[in-house]
Amino acid sequence: MNTLSARRLAIDTYQEHVAYMRHDCPVCASEGFEAQSRLQLVAADRTIIATLNVVMDNLLRTDEIGLSEAAWRALGATEGQQVAVTHPPPLTSMRHVRAKVYGHALAPAAMHEVIADVAAGRYSDLHLASFVTACAGDRLDLEETVALTRAMVDVGERLQWPGSPIVDKHCVGGLPGNRTTMIVVPIVAACGLTMPKTSSRAITSPAGTADTMETLAPVDLPLPLLRQVVERTGGCIAWGGAVRLSPADDILIRVERPLDLDSEGQLVASVLSKKLAAGSSHVLIDIPVGATAKVRTEAAARKLGDRMVRVGEAVGLHVSLAITDGSQPVGRGVGPALEAHDVLAVLRRHPAAPEDLASRSVRLAGEILELAGAAAAGTGQARARQVLESGQAWTKFQQICEAQGGLREPGRAPHRHVLTADGSGVVDAVDNRVLARSAKLAGAPKDALAGVEVHVRIGDLVEQGEPVFSLHAQSPGELAYALAYLESVPPVFHIREEE
Amino acid sequence: MNTLSARRLAIDTYQEHVAYMRHDCPVCASEGFEAQSRLQLVAADRTIIATLNVVMDNLLRTDEIGLSEAAWRALGATEGQQVAVTHPPPLTSMRHVRAKVYGHALAPAAMHEVIADVAAGRYSDLHLASFVTACAGDRLDLEETVALTRAMVDVGERLQWPGSPIVDKHCVGGLPGNRTTMIVVPIVAACGLTMPKTSSRAITSPAGTADTMETLAPVDLPLPLLRQVVERTGGCIAWGGAVRLSPADDILIRVERPLDLDSEGQLVASVLSKKLAAGSSHVLIDIPVGATAKVRTEAAARKLGDRMVRVGEAVGLHVSLAITDGSQPVGRGVGPALEAHDVLAVLRRHPAAPEDLASRSVRLAGEILELAGAAAAGTGQARARQVLESGQAWTKFQQICEAQGGLREPGRAPHRHVLTADGSGVVDAVDNRVLARSAKLAGAPKDALAGVEVHVRIGDLVEQGEPVFSLHAQSPGELAYALAYLESVPPVFHIREEE
Repeated sequence: MNTLSARRLAIDTYQEHVAYMRHDCPVCASEGFEAQSRLQLVAADRTIIATLNVVMDNLLRTDEIGLSEAAWRALGATEGQQVAVTHPPPLTSMRHVRAKVYGHALAPAAMHEVIADVAAGRYSDLHLASFVTACAGDRLDLEETVALTRAMVDVGERLQWPGSPIVDKHCVGGLPGNRTTMIVVPIVAACGLTMPKTSSRAITSPAGTADTMETLAPVDLPLPLLRQVVERTGGCIAWGGAVRLSPADDILIRVERPLDLDSEGQLVASVLSKKLAAGSSHVLIDIPVGATAKVRTEAAARKLGDRMVRVGEAVGLHVSLAITDGSQPVGRGVGPALEAHDVLAVLRRHPAAPEDLASRSVRLAGEILELAGAAAAGTGQARARQVLESGQAWTKFQQICEAQGGLREPGRAPHRHVLTADGSGVVDAVDNRVLARSAKLAGAPKDALAGVEVHVRIGDLVEQGEPVFSLHAQSPGELAYALAYLESVPPVFHIREEE
Repeated sequence: MNTLSARRLAIDTYQEHVAYMRHDCPVCASEGFEAQSRLQLVAADRTIIATLNVVMDNLLRTDEIGLSEAAWRALGATEGQQVAVTHPPPLTSMRHVRAKVYGHALAPAAMHEVIADVAAGRYSDLHLASFVTACAGDRLDLEETVALTRAMVDVGERLQWPGSPIVDKHCVGGLPGNRTTMIVVPIVAACGLTMPKTSSRAITSPAGTADTMETLAPVDLPLPLLRQVVERTGGCIAWGGAVRLSPADDILIRVERPLDLDSEGQLVASVLSKKLAAGSSHVLIDIPVGATAKVRTEAAARKLGDRMVRVGEAVGLHVSLAITDGSQPVGRGVGPALEAHDVLAVLRRHPAAPEDLASRSVRLAGEILELAGAAAAGTGQARARQVLESGQAWTKFQQICEAQGGLREPGRAPHRHVLTADGSGVVDAVDNRVLARSAKLAGAPKDALAGVEVHVRIGDLVEQGEPVFSLHAQSPGELAYALAYLESVPPVFHIREEE
């Protein structure tokens, strides 16, 4: 057995496991390892796969193995601990990915094999990018999507809750600022239903619910704490990845993000696997439709919704749909902290709170109340509005935040730039994609305070020179980067000059 | 302008450009860089794109930027040189890759944009893997393949030679040990034709011609030297990547290799772009067909050959085809040095030289002689055989090797294991894929001496316990790895017991 002494090199490679060995290390020589070789590392009871970087000089001794921060954490290593280093077993499940690339469908057993290897960290970034690309763009059929959903649930934790129904919701993204979940959960929980909401982080958008919620309270909840929060308050707003619900999904999302690739099959599997793993029985899917939203036509929304309902049936979930307006951002902020400010304003019934965010949330909460039998048909929305207006939702939200570790107020970004109207007239269209991209270039979601603040809505009259939206950034470099991008594209807000 | 002082960290990350900065470095803070951020680095007149790793402790000062070996070389940096660090321009050509994933064809201008970014190193490994996967498995049509071929030529060097025809050959891989090129080039050149042969390294096989030739003479020839070799000897056997003929192709191959993905369109573009860039006018394509070769049926060979001929026409190359037997390995060795021993034996007319390798080479050389008008129709093979048998080919091969930098004898691997027949009878099939994979697991082509030595051929009678093939490895770990794989699969050589 080849063993080396662990050394924390304090190099942050994000989530990639990198191991460092000397070029003249005896293990390199006897095993034939070279730069970029994949290694299997075992320390005590933990096993990880890492990519080798070879160190030429005195950074390490020949009997040491250096570890990146991600590898160090995943291996649970201690300084000087003996680490066994071997070739990993051949990645046989890649043959299924190749077969898929060559046009063959992925059978359930093949899908399970791939997803188990993904969840175990056996796929390099290259392999992950290839799998994601092979399945992107509508290339997974119904059976493959069902298989992917089941495989994702099988390789992670699965929660169970006393009683039924356990309700949940999901919004198919693409609409900047659409942060209804954080208002729906407290309304529904205040009505006595159980809504253990786990969310993912952003894939290709400037913020996911987990990113936004994290600016207000911890979302990285270990399973026992998550359970306690839900038992105590009836709800939670947590990051799904932290509780290993569908862990393969989080790994795939990490690769999808820089590629900016989405896939209908992966989207459905991602959403429904999270719901199934979270123990839900009834799920409302919100699909915003708009020219520059993720889903552009009602027909596409129906097609996606139909896939959601049919996969839901196959895996034992009651799925219903809410097709909503996706023509412009919801609320004013786009980016984690900016969206959190909007949510707080609605829950606190601030007079300047964005009414569009409030009414969307009330509509969705009302549908969930009716779906779960907590309100008679036709009365859900009124009940939800009353719970919001009375302050019960705000009280419940504070309870949830406290249970998750404490409510905090998000800050404001230090670097801002106001963009103004270059003509006078009526705002008649918004390019959500360009808006989202500029928020991302400004730093969102990695920089929580970064993003975009919108000052006008469709139908508003604006004068030339009036503020239309603002960029917020945590560094001048990112502010400049986002501005340079905006100067290279047509205006985000289209203003129709009055005749 | 943000500048930092260059520091060579002596970390080998293979071909990936990695830059290291302190977490509290002022450039990180002002630009919002994080682990895995993509950076643009400028030093003097060179610009590269690198991936950031963040260093937590005292490995670097806050005014320094560490560079991996690949980044150090590409930037041509010197210790302490000032490096300007900025965000790279947005990778706008990825929108074409996404469109391709979503099912849209890549127009010539789009393909050119993608390939120019690939050649300039602007694609991360994730982006490369996505592009390769999106184009794999027959997803490029004729027009896209023509566009890819042209784009690959446009972004690299292009050679020109006095006179015409300039001949070339290419074997569509998948047949272990098929190293005819190294015999065809000296035969053809000895007949007075010009054959400036550039080859790629292995993609998914245990050895490419460049890997095998490199065990005998340098193949990494700068352009002026390559030109000199061809002018002096009429031929060369060089690595195409060294002269930046179709440099994007070499970058794509680096990603295709670990993914083990091939693509008809990329294959055709890879082959023909290299020929076009090398200044060829007439090209013979050898397509071995066999149950476990890369091309499995005559119909598939015709389809691929047809694509080669049609793309050739579109880009101005005369392409002709030789469809050959691909049922078993050619010669005895599989792996760079083992194959080189076979080539030397044939050229030296050693009595034990593998006759199958000699006769295949003679057939292909004969077809090239006729195609180029250097032999009358029907007389090419006899002429080629005579040039081989007389020793003229061996003399020419030695001239070529000397001109490339000197002929050397390859060694033998220190670690070997003989696999024996587990029954008696007639060898009636060989699994080329399993054979190739075991050679790769034993270390080929990275370890030049590693691979497989075949002791029997289809039709041979063997007794139980008789040697069938041997594994060769440069380290005991890799030998064990290859053996463990062979124990997990059915026998490589199928032996039909005599009734």
